Amino acid sequence: MNIWKGRFKGGLHPKALQFSSSLSVDRRLFEEDIDGSLAHVRMLARQKILRAADAKKIAAGLERVRRELRAGKLPLSAPAKGRFVAEDIHMAIEARLIDLIGETGGRLHTARSRNDQVALDERLFLLSQTSAVLGEIRALQKSLLTLARRYRNVMMPGYTHLQHGQPILLAHHLLAYIEMLDRDYGRFSDSRTRVSLSPLGAGALAGSSFPIDRRGVAKQLHLGGILDNSIDAVSDRDAILEFLAASAVTMMHLSRLAEELVLWSSREWGFIEIGDAFSTGSSIMPQKKNPDMAELVRGKTGRVYGDLIALLTTMKGLPLAYNRDMQEDKVPMFDAADTLRSSLTIMALMIPSVKVLEDRFEQELDADFSTATDLADFLVRKGMPFRQAHAVVGEIVQGAAERRVGLSAFALADLQKYSLKFDGTALALTRSRASIEAKKSAGSTSPAEVAKALLRWEKKLGRPRGRHRYGG
Amino acid sequence: MNIWKGRFKGGLHPKALQFSSSLSVDRRLFEEDIDGSLAHVRMLARQKILRAADAKKIAAGLERVRRELRAGKLPLSAPAKGRFVAEDIHMAIEARLIDLIGETGGRLHTARSRNDQVALDERLFLLSQTSAVLGEIRALQKSLLTLARRYRNVMMPGYTHLQHGQPILLAHHLLAYIEMLDRDYGRFSDSRTRVSLSPLGAGALAGSSFPIDRRGVAKQLHLGGILDNSIDAVSDRDAILEFLAASAVTMMHLSRLAEELVLWSSREWGFIEIGDAFSTGSSIMPQKKNPDMAELVRGKTGRVYGDLIALLTTMKGLPLAYNRDMQEDKVPMFDAADTLRSSLTIMALMIPSVKVLEDRFEQELDADFSTATDLADFLVRKGMPFRQAHAVVGEIVQGAAERRVGLSAFALADLQKYSLKFDGTALALTRSRASIEAKKSAGSTSPAEVAKALLRWEKKLGRPRGRHRYGG
Amino acid sequence: MNIWKGRFKGGLHPKALQFSSSLSVDRRLFEEDIDGSLAHVRMLARQKILRAADAKKIAAGLERVRRELRAGKLPLSAPAKGRFVAEDIHMAIEARLIDLIGETGGRLHTARSRNDQVALDERLFLLSQTSAVLGEIRALQKSLLTLARRYRNVMMPGYTHLQHGQPILLAHHLLAYIEMLDRDYGRFSDSRTRVSLSPLGAGALAGSSFPIDRRGVAKQLHLGGILDNSIDAVSDRDAILEFLAASAVTMMHLSRLAEELVLWSSREWGFIEIGDAFSTGSSIMPQKKNPDMAELVRGKTGRVYGDLIALLTTMKGLPLAYNRDMQEDKVPMFDAADTLRSSLTIMALMIPSVKVLEDRFEQELDADFSTATDLADFLVRKGMPFRQAHAVVGEIVQGAAERRVGLSAFALADLQKYSLKFDGTALALTRSRASIEAKKSAGSTSPAEVAKALLRWEKKLGRPRGRHRYGG
Amino acid sequence: MNIWKGRFKGGLHPKALQFSSSLSVDRRLFEEDIDGSLAHVRMLARQKILRAADAKKIAAGLERVRRELRAGKLPLSAPAKGRFVAEDIHMAIEARLIDLIGETGGRLHTARSRNDQVALDERLFLLSQTSAVLGEIRALQKSLLTLARRYRNVMMPGYTHLQHGQPILLAHHLLAYIEMLDRDYGRFSDSRTRVSLSPLGAGALAGSSFPIDRRGVAKQLHLGGILDNSIDAVSDRDAILEFLAASAVTMMHLSRLAEELVLWSSREWGFIEIGDAFSTGSSIMPQKKNPDMAELVRGKTGRVYGDLIALLTTMKGLPLAYNRDMQEDKVPMFDAADTLRSSLTIMALMIPSVKVLEDRFEQELDADFSTATDLADFLVRKGMPFRQAHAVVGEIVQGAAERRVGLSAFALADLQKYSLKFDGTALALTRSRASIEAKKSAGSTSPAEVAKALLRWEKKLGRPRGRHRYGG
Repeated sequence: MNIWKGRFKGGLHPKALQFSSSLSVDRRLFEEDIDGSLAHVRMLARQKILRAADAKKIAAGLERVRRELRAGKLPLSAPAKGRFVAEDIHMAIEARLIDLIGETGGRLHTARSRNDQVALDERLFLLSQTSAVLGEIRALQKSLLTLARRYRNVMMPGYTHLQHGQPILLAHHLLAYIEMLDRDYGRFSDSRTRVSLSPLGAGALAGSSFPIDRRGVAKQLHLGGILDNSIDAVSDRDAILEFLAASAVTMMHLSRLAEELVLWSSREWGFIEIGDAFSTGSSIMPQKKNPDMAELVRGKTGRVYGDLIALLTTMKGLPLAYNRDMQEDKVPMFDAADTLRSSLTIMALMIPSVKVLEDRFEQELDADFSTATDLADFLVRKGMPFRQAHAVVGEIVQGAAERRVGLSAFALADLQKYSLKFDGTALALTRSRASIEAKKSAGSTSPAEVAKALLRWEKKLGRPRGRHRYGG
Repeated sequence: MNIWKGRFKGGLHPKALQFSSSLSVDRRLFEEDIDGSLAHVRMLARQKILRAADAKKIAAGLERVRRELRAGKLPLSAPAKGRFVAEDIHMAIEARLIDLIGETGGRLHTARSRNDQVALDERLFLLSQTSAVLGEIRALQKSLLTLARRYRNVMMPGYTHLQHGQPILLAHHLLAYIEMLDRDYGRFSDSRTRVSLSPLGAGALAGSSFPIDRRGVAKQLHLGGILDNSIDAVSDRDAILEFLAASAVTMMHLSRLAEELVLWSSREWGFIEIGDAFSTGSSIMPQKKNPDMAELVRGKTGRVYGDLIALLTTMKGLPLAYNRDMQEDKVPMFDAADTLRSSLTIMALMIPSVKVLEDRFEQELDADFSTATDLADFLVRKGMPFRQAHAVVGEIVQGAAERRVGLSAFALADLQKYSLKFDGTALALTRSRASIEAKKSAGSTSPAEVAKALLRWEKKLGRPRGRHRYGG
Repeated sequence: MNIWKGRFKGGLHPKALQFSSSLSVDRRLFEEDIDGSLAHVRMLARQKILRAADAKKIAAGLERVRRELRAGKLPLSAPAKGRFVAEDIHMAIEARLIDLIGETGGRLHTARSRNDQVALDERLFLLSQTSAVLGEIRALQKSLLTLARRYRNVMMPGYTHLQHGQPILLAHHLLAYIEMLDRDYGRFSDSRTRVSLSPLGAGALAGSSFPIDRRGVAKQLHLGGILDNSIDAVSDRDAILEFLAASAVTMMHLSRLAEELVLWSSREWGFIEIGDAFSTGSSIMPQKKNPDMAELVRGKTGRVYGDLIALLTTMKGLPLAYNRDMQEDKVPMFDAADTLRSSLTIMALMIPSVKVLEDRFEQELDADFSTATDLADFLVRKGMPFRQAHAVVGEIVQGAAERRVGLSAFALADLQKYSLKFDGTALALTRSRASIEAKKSAGSTSPAEVAKALLRWEKKLGRPRGRHRYGG
Repeated sequence: MNIWKGRFKGGLHPKALQFSSSLSVDRRLFEEDIDGSLAHVRMLARQKILRAADAKKIAAGLERVRRELRAGKLPLSAPAKGRFVAEDIHMAIEARLIDLIGETGGRLHTARSRNDQVALDERLFLLSQTSAVLGEIRALQKSLLTLARRYRNVMMPGYTHLQHGQPILLAHHLLAYIEMLDRDYGRFSDSRTRVSLSPLGAGALAGSSFPIDRRGVAKQLHLGGILDNSIDAVSDRDAILEFLAASAVTMMHLSRLAEELVLWSSREWGFIEIGDAFSTGSSIMPQKKNPDMAELVRGKTGRVYGDLIALLTTMKGLPLAYNRDMQEDKVPMFDAADTLRSSLTIMALMIPSVKVLEDRFEQELDADFSTATDLADFLVRKGMPFRQAHAVVGEIVQGAAERRVGLSAFALADLQKYSLKFDGTALALTRSRASIEAKKSAGSTSPAEVAKALLRWEKKLGRPRGRHRYGG
């Protein structure tokens, strides 16, 4: 069976068939394809475009094809009888259907084109992936929250420029990632309103001359509505691009967390130990314990950026409506979904395995200069303009650095050499714990604010989630 | 005045100053910077952190600096007295303020860091740009709608693979772009909830020890709230990335419209003429009339893709919180905003200048084979399975091609050689107009559906829009 | 067998194993891996680091593993006995070797690390791919040359801005692509001097304490030399990036050729017909004949751009030496090589199937204004400054456009209304053929220059190529 | 003066003029443009296409325009008399020339188009930039070499996965970057053969009907030859892409060096201090000393990646020959050249300011496990298969880790508990210095190999370089 045999004389060149076949890639859409076909055929029956008996036969046949595909029994990659077999999953399923139930199977494609069919399958795929990603983001947020609670009193240096800036609570640092991930959640979530629209019924591009019920199909698939213009419905891929862009930003966030896990695991930092179950060794250096999972997440960020730029490039400058170029949307879509999801999952699993060496920075923070800002703020509260206070404390730091001591080694008299405004309160502020506790602003690293944030996230992350695979 | 003079002995190397200064780039943030500083200083006064008189003096000074900057009178690029002058716009404004009002100016930076200050300025910039983009998208949609209405009866071939597919209405084709742009509108609009949050008060990264009122500042700036974690507030740039990603997808859409304008203007297509005011000639070929604006929009798509990948790359793998790398966020942000906005604007202006050659495809559509699908659908309605109908019509097309005529040249008898199911109704369907009118599905190219869509968009685009520059 | 069992207590988490395993990807490096191991083990024997008998045993074992892998008999993906099996192809081969020949197999890894081993395998892969690409570029150039020769007298419009610019020969247009491809050839060819260097012996990063002969290994593998610094040898991936960049530029060139094939196949252009063996139909529109292969090549350009940006991103900011991130180099490397090679191949096969409709532009060129430049040049030769001549001819074109005729419809008297410098020679120049023949400059579209170019390329492309798989 | 006034009725819309003008960007090509015009006009005179007196007058006029431009006296941005003024630098120069010398100026454009003119200017620009980049790469290599020599005996851990791997010499590590940069040098250098070709004489696309001497022009400009096909000469931009790709890879290398400078400057590493002249402070934290220059180099990597993807995108799928899209080549070309060159320069200046804390790792290396590989190699030399030796030493490391000591704390008896093959030689190998000195392979970190490499590079970098601005 050759689906366009009427028009063509010879067959497709074998290399051309191989070059253009997407079956090895798009076969993973078979569930979505069959779900879409079932909704379509039921609508055809409701609208009397197909006889009920035919529709029933087709539906049963499709379910049988689905079972075969799930069991890996359908020999998709074999060249088989006709050339259509290897072209794509959509033709493969239809061909198998006709094998199974005969000519009636040919009625399934009534009032439908591969163009709207593929567009639907992709949207169903995006919806189920988005739903999964939302769950995986929540899982990683929970892992981070658990770690933050476990070590809620641990202090660490807050860094800027990878230099010690100000003392902070580790929990506050981890909460920053929970916030980032929440915006990622928001982006994926917002995208659903644009994804959850059915293109089916757009036909090749112009719509259908059959009295189909497009909204009924959308409803049956738990979608939010239909794409209102038939040309638009089959010719855009912005829904995938939005998924890829949200994935790229999320991977950027994960790459930062991964970088910190790598740094903190280094001998120089010595701040954490990642569990053995998420570390690997070396083929030549027997002593190594490497944070491979974090490195891989960081490295895979490139993959997702590449996927995004790939599809942006492919879509650039294409005239409407469908062009075969658009077949190239699937590799980046699948690759990004797989990469993002496995990265989220491995992070969510690995984070709880992290052991924090609680005392690592307890002393050191007092020995560095990370409370200098607190001293400056003290002077400001005593009436000195900030810029002047900043300069005074800069000189104190310079003096301490020359004496090779930290600020906490200064006596009051030492401080007063720089300004007589200093008193015992100021001296106390040179201790990291005091610095942290002195913070007053909303969202700061003060224990009280961090406790509030932990509580807020516990409540938010505790809420159950549960949706239909494709539904909102 | 050297803002960190205490700690350092020599000055910055002149090449290092030049390399690290962002003033030539970020000077365009001066309005946002002053708006933010005003909100900050007023809050400091309300909270009694600053005396009311000082706050007043600072506010007046800031307004004077703003007037100087607007008038281009502030010599920003001169090396001036201290090295800070050339570093960035934030230091330049503060330095000028101190010049003008003396030491009191140094109190402005109380309970603030450049880290949260810059983050705020960027968000204010994004909000005003997003607001402008939303307006420009609407303007382009209106231009397209106007053109669609003007030529509402014009038929053209609907293309797939750049081959004639099925006859459609030009209005339907233009409406497809209105739909695409509407999803772009949605993406920009959704992003506002994540952008419209104030980072101010996060300080360098840990929050502030002053009793500041972060939510009050946000409210005064018409923002939706505050960023809840101080580290997150100063270390992420995902708000810019979301803007860049939405811009990239919009440019992709514009590149497709641009491509079609170029194609349709070609001698081969001969379907439209772009107005002289938007066309250019050649320095050597006197006869040329080139669709330069469309080409430039298509070409500029690369710029915005590049901006997106630039910032994604810069942010990849950075540990928290602020790193100087992040200074590189501004060039892509500004470039993308400028490129997108000017592209939207030029398209909105140019589209109404387009003259459509209404008769161009009137005959040709009957002479090609673009109604073949209608014949196939006819056979399906007569009970033939779609796949079989498809094959029959494929043979008809093959026959017509061999006779070098279009389908509309066939008599009924000709059709009946291929299938006796054909009758006069079928014959009529070989005419393009009939094919278009036969469409029945929602969102199809049928005149009735297109009229509905035009009406719907008129209502939607007619609604007034109007918001505060930064507000939601 | 767990290769780092000494140091670790538990096993790797199953999800971590799955996340980090590269076996499904890097298994295709097995030939290179075995070639490299054979060269290594032979050197070890020559240097008396290994006993000759052991080396022989290992070499025989490796050849047996190779046969098993070629036959698909080695169960690589099974979880097998130890966790190493699934980690990567290098460990899989070594493990199988030890299975086959016992403990002696463990001596193969003497004076070697996976770091230098992988780096070698990748370079061997790049060399064999580069060699293949060079051949495929030549094949495509030959296809283009054949087509150019076949239609050497066919005229067509030369386009700028997709508007008719000046008449040219189709052969000249096709020769432009041969030139582009030749620079691509040059880039791939130049890269070999940087790729063809052996990293083996660099060990994990510091070199080896065994008296190995690095240059001997390089020589045996037909490489040009060794990488001189052991840290550099294992930590860079610029050789892959150079391959990806050269691939991206080549794909850019192919995308332009593809675009033109699509345009020329359109009904509007009607300039070529692509052979049925490289065209496909539609699932719904029976009349369609689509230039799918060209569209796919154009679309796949995005893939290769994405591969390039992926690895650039992954490598950005990584400290020396090896980081696990670098495992992510293989997917883009393989994908780009496959995409580029199949695109070159399909183009080389498809081009000869192109049928040019020779008369398509014969008349039309006279009817358009594409010889306007020739008229302007004529006036210049008569002493008029170019800018003035340009303006005069611009007015002629305007006049012709208003009369809706081409330049060739003008009589001498008509021309002389614009300038009395015009004479019979000028009139002749309004004919396309005359315009083409009037060209005098080197590399122009004149028949003489085109004939020279065809001859030059015939000679150049006729030369035999033939090299060792990895050698220069 | 409107250069295409004949054909057009109205003027260009002001927004269209602004949107399409490239003058603010391409004005920096004025030197190249005038150089090219001078070579062109001299050839026209030699070929008797222009009278000698006219050519002389034009040449003198061009030199005067050049002086005005250098002095900033030419009011390029003013809207001036005609719309051409603001369009691009090429028209601006020609217009000014005609202002200065009258109608004769209009003869300059004889046998030339803006298409070949721009293509030439860009190639001249690339050549001068490439020449500068080559010098800047050499300068950075020299800086690294100087630092390596200064600290030639300093040991440090060689890292993989950012974990201590094996002890190495800092000089060896720095030499790795010299090698990387040398391949970058090679890529830029190789590109010259493809860049140094003159497109002039290609005209708009078809060549010229004047008897011009294209090779003479090329020779006069010190170029290697001409582009052989006139269409190719004006329609490709692969020379820029090759420059951008080489720049992107070089920036990748710089980003890695920058990352290490940031890490090593951290308090945790405490391995180096960057000179004050290349460090900055904080607006709020008085104690900060930040490695801003390194961070900026790392961050700017994104810019160059973005530039590359921008132009790759712009060129994708463009039909031949010139399209206005290609005007968008300049912003990425200029931005990448500026970013790369300033990054190379700042690095070359900063590296000599680096103070290495020589003792930092002297003790620690003995206390960690980085000589474990040496112990394993020892066992192999005693006849144990590598895999087994690896396992034995893994257990030793595990034991030491449990006792919280480094390998150097082990007595011989301790070692012999794991294998009786250990002896005094083995014990010595647990010291880092001994481990480094035991390396034997070419290119290893052994002092002898490092000394050889230092010497080799001294010779190579000492060689004088000196070429013509555009010449090879």
